[in-house]
Amino acid sequence: MPKYSLGEIASRMNGEVQGDPDVMITGVAGLEEAEEGDISFVANRRYHDRIASTKAAAVIVGQGNGAAQSEKNCLIVPNPYLTFLLTVELFHPQNSDFEPSVHPTAVVDPTARIGERVFIGALVVVGAGASIGDDVILQARSYVGERAGIGDKSRVMPGAIVLHDVMVGKRCLLQSGCVLGGDGFGFVCDNKGVQQKIPQVAGLIIGDDVEIGANSTIDRGTLSPTRIGSGVKCDNLVHIGHNVEIGENTLVVAQVGVSGSTKVGSSVIMAGQAGIGGHLNIGDRVKIGAQAGVTKSVPAGLEISGYPARPHAESLRAQASVGKLPRLVRQFRELLERVKKLEDKL
Amino acid sequence: MPKYSLGEIASRMNGEVQGDPDVMITGVAGLEEAEEGDISFVANRRYHDRIASTKAAAVIVGQGNGAAQSEKNCLIVPNPYLTFLLTVELFHPQNSDFEPSVHPTAVVDPTARIGERVFIGALVVVGAGASIGDDVILQARSYVGERAGIGDKSRVMPGAIVLHDVMVGKRCLLQSGCVLGGDGFGFVCDNKGVQQKIPQVAGLIIGDDVEIGANSTIDRGTLSPTRIGSGVKCDNLVHIGHNVEIGENTLVVAQVGVSGSTKVGSSVIMAGQAGIGGHLNIGDRVKIGAQAGVTKSVPAGLEISGYPARPHAESLRAQASVGKLPRLVRQFRELLERVKKLEDKL
Amino acid sequence: MPKYSLGEIASRMNGEVQGDPDVMITGVAGLEEAEEGDISFVANRRYHDRIASTKAAAVIVGQGNGAAQSEKNCLIVPNPYLTFLLTVELFHPQNSDFEPSVHPTAVVDPTARIGERVFIGALVVVGAGASIGDDVILQARSYVGERAGIGDKSRVMPGAIVLHDVMVGKRCLLQSGCVLGGDGFGFVCDNKGVQQKIPQVAGLIIGDDVEIGANSTIDRGTLSPTRIGSGVKCDNLVHIGHNVEIGENTLVVAQVGVSGSTKVGSSVIMAGQAGIGGHLNIGDRVKIGAQAGVTKSVPAGLEISGYPARPHAESLRAQASVGKLPRLVRQFRELLERVKKLEDKL
Repeated sequence: MPKYSLGEIASRMNGEVQGDPDVMITGVAGLEEAEEGDISFVANRRYHDRIASTKAAAVIVGQGNGAAQSEKNCLIVPNPYLTFLLTVELFHPQNSDFEPSVHPTAVVDPTARIGERVFIGALVVVGAGASIGDDVILQARSYVGERAGIGDKSRVMPGAIVLHDVMVGKRCLLQSGCVLGGDGFGFVCDNKGVQQKIPQVAGLIIGDDVEIGANSTIDRGTLSPTRIGSGVKCDNLVHIGHNVEIGENTLVVAQVGVSGSTKVGSSVIMAGQAGIGGHLNIGDRVKIGAQAGVTKSVPAGLEISGYPARPHAESLRAQASVGKLPRLVRQFRELLERVKKLEDKL
Repeated sequence: MPKYSLGEIASRMNGEVQGDPDVMITGVAGLEEAEEGDISFVANRRYHDRIASTKAAAVIVGQGNGAAQSEKNCLIVPNPYLTFLLTVELFHPQNSDFEPSVHPTAVVDPTARIGERVFIGALVVVGAGASIGDDVILQARSYVGERAGIGDKSRVMPGAIVLHDVMVGKRCLLQSGCVLGGDGFGFVCDNKGVQQKIPQVAGLIIGDDVEIGANSTIDRGTLSPTRIGSGVKCDNLVHIGHNVEIGENTLVVAQVGVSGSTKVGSSVIMAGQAGIGGHLNIGDRVKIGAQAGVTKSVPAGLEISGYPARPHAESLRAQASVGKLPRLVRQFRELLERVKKLEDKL
Repeated sequence: MPKYSLGEIASRMNGEVQGDPDVMITGVAGLEEAEEGDISFVANRRYHDRIASTKAAAVIVGQGNGAAQSEKNCLIVPNPYLTFLLTVELFHPQNSDFEPSVHPTAVVDPTARIGERVFIGALVVVGAGASIGDDVILQARSYVGERAGIGDKSRVMPGAIVLHDVMVGKRCLLQSGCVLGGDGFGFVCDNKGVQQKIPQVAGLIIGDDVEIGANSTIDRGTLSPTRIGSGVKCDNLVHIGHNVEIGENTLVVAQVGVSGSTKVGSSVIMAGQAGIGGHLNIGDRVKIGAQAGVTKSVPAGLEISGYPARPHAESLRAQASVGKLPRLVRQFRELLERVKKLEDKL
């Protein structure tokens, strides 16, 4: 792990030191987990009183917020959380395990084009006609199929699989075990009840700055490609069906499933285990609750939840009513009796 | 990509050309996506008016349906969709990347039996006593365990894993990252609260013409084998527990889970993210809705949905009522007041 | 398959033979599936009458339970089921395929420490600084990353992936395709709507006797490690987010998802496809029903189910009421009419 004085960190982060600029920082941690030598942070004024009790050697804090009263060494910056993230990267430089090189056990087809400063690990396979950009990292046991492309600065983690003809943009992170470009699930039932496969011959096009989680699967298109927009982030065990299109900066949380031919807008959030039906349109900035089951198209900006998914407020009201339902049934029976008595009286 | 004249395609497909039989066809696409040189199709008369506006060089249409009015080159056949699928295969011949050969980096145990015309890609592992049929394709980085069998003409995609003693039928497609024959989830809690593993020693038997999606998992049986019938199609990220039996031609959509020891009939459809409890019987031709939670056995032919799963019509009625519930609660309170007033009057 | 006389089995299992101690046993099976030469078992007195009709050569039965009347060869023991499991292991000795050895195609970094009697299969990768304990089995195509550790007697199945810095305890079973130590799903949305990655730099610590199912994913922590307690058993396709802590002997059934930073107690059971929200506390011995959606912390010992998850009894009552709801709505309308008539009369 590298070491920096607080003053060095301050000058890299354009911050101001309050206290000892020569204190040596050897790691990063949360306020409560911090040990001697660590630097930590407080993003919210409400937690400033916790600064006194941390073991951290220094704390990153916001400007003009009473940190001056503290005896702790402080690094004062406009956005403490963002500065903390950058400091984490300073101590844990990404990709430092990967000096440009090609491992002798890698199987790289001679017709593949390989960019500059590429790392290709042990037992990697790169197929015929594949194209690997500059500064790409293909970790051990990853797979890039025939004619597939990986953009500059992208990283493919151990065991990730990019199948034939799939195009991946720049600065993407493909986590272990993901499968990009599997055949979509398309069959026609013939008149004997046997399912005949519909050939899945189109590709999968993934934009820049996309992250795909471990063991997620994104299928290739049937006749026109499946498309994942730039900036999309997918968690683990996500399924995205054939012919789907997902807009920019959309978040897809773990175990979500998006059925075939659905179009999802940009800046959408799909929470964990939600399921989206096929051939739907999900507008920009829609928020879909965890485990929601989406059966209809959703206009832009709406927040929905439940099964079948409804506007979130409506869904909450319905859930609350269901909780009260057993009591309602009891009260209803009592009321029936009372009405009967009234009827008898008249 | 191969090239064919419209006349050549017509003679292979037993169709009739209307227009220029010499026009060269260089690809396939949907009506709207088609570009110059493509052949497309219209399966439904309703869309015939779109023929005029497509850029396709030719269109596959049904017999006796007014295509005669069109100026577009047409290929007239009894079943346009099926003919189109066959034409797609003509232009995208499956498995053409795989000339029979064994890659020098493949690790094939000398005791394994290897059939005729087999493709074994880079870094494939074939275990001791395994049996590989004729015309099998084992793509790069696939794994076939000790004593496992892969039937004739089956294809195992990159990274797919067939564990020891698993038997796979003919013409199967095992997609990337699927795991066939993992240990089932079986434990007995001893009197110290520690879970003791129940050995999972039986196999997994998969019929002919089965497709298993990317990253799906099917466990081996405890004492008698798990069985997947011929013609079953599984989508991605599906889980099938130990001792399960699935009948012929059943469809299992993405992220479905089938718990241990359940028997599923033939021609069943389980839609996405549905979950089926353990030790149940699901009859033939049952349709299970997306995200349904099946807690009881289901007789043949029924359509069910919801949690807990009920007959679909009942489920829809219950859902509709839940939507109206907040209003019902309000109306009930009003009625209570009215009855109270009546009681006071009497 | 090995062979043992019934008398040999009796002496290994500390049981008592009734009948012929010299009968040769060649396999194990359930009562109904058993064939000539098999040994089977009856754990429940209710099924003792089935002993007569089994084809098994011998049956394991409990003490003092009328087995004396049977003509079948019996092995009498205090706990028939446990004895049966041990007998299964006798005939299917685990790990017998793995004689200590290192396959010539394995890529083991020279800085990795390798214990005694280790099996390292074909095309395995062991990264720099990794530590492999004694009697460990790394099956073909498994991956152990830089500085990761695998405890004594653990087994890593084909295609399983243990990423850098992940620590795995003793006697663990990591099934095929699982990914341990992927990056957690953590982003901050900047003021342009772009998701910026939060570095995930902590590790993942897994206790002893843990089993992880096929294609399951457990993420590394952001700043402090994700922790899986000893004795935890995870089924297939399970997702466990970053910073999660799971207590000892907890069971996580297939396709369950646990969101980031949640603490789960010990001896908890999470049934199939359940989803647990982030930053929650789930107490010891809690039981979570299949497909439940847990949105709040849960005190120890509670049984919950449904979406949103409630105490199980309450959940069942609510479900039952929902089923009756369409009828209630009808009855309510009738009652409205009756009250209206009463009002008119007065």
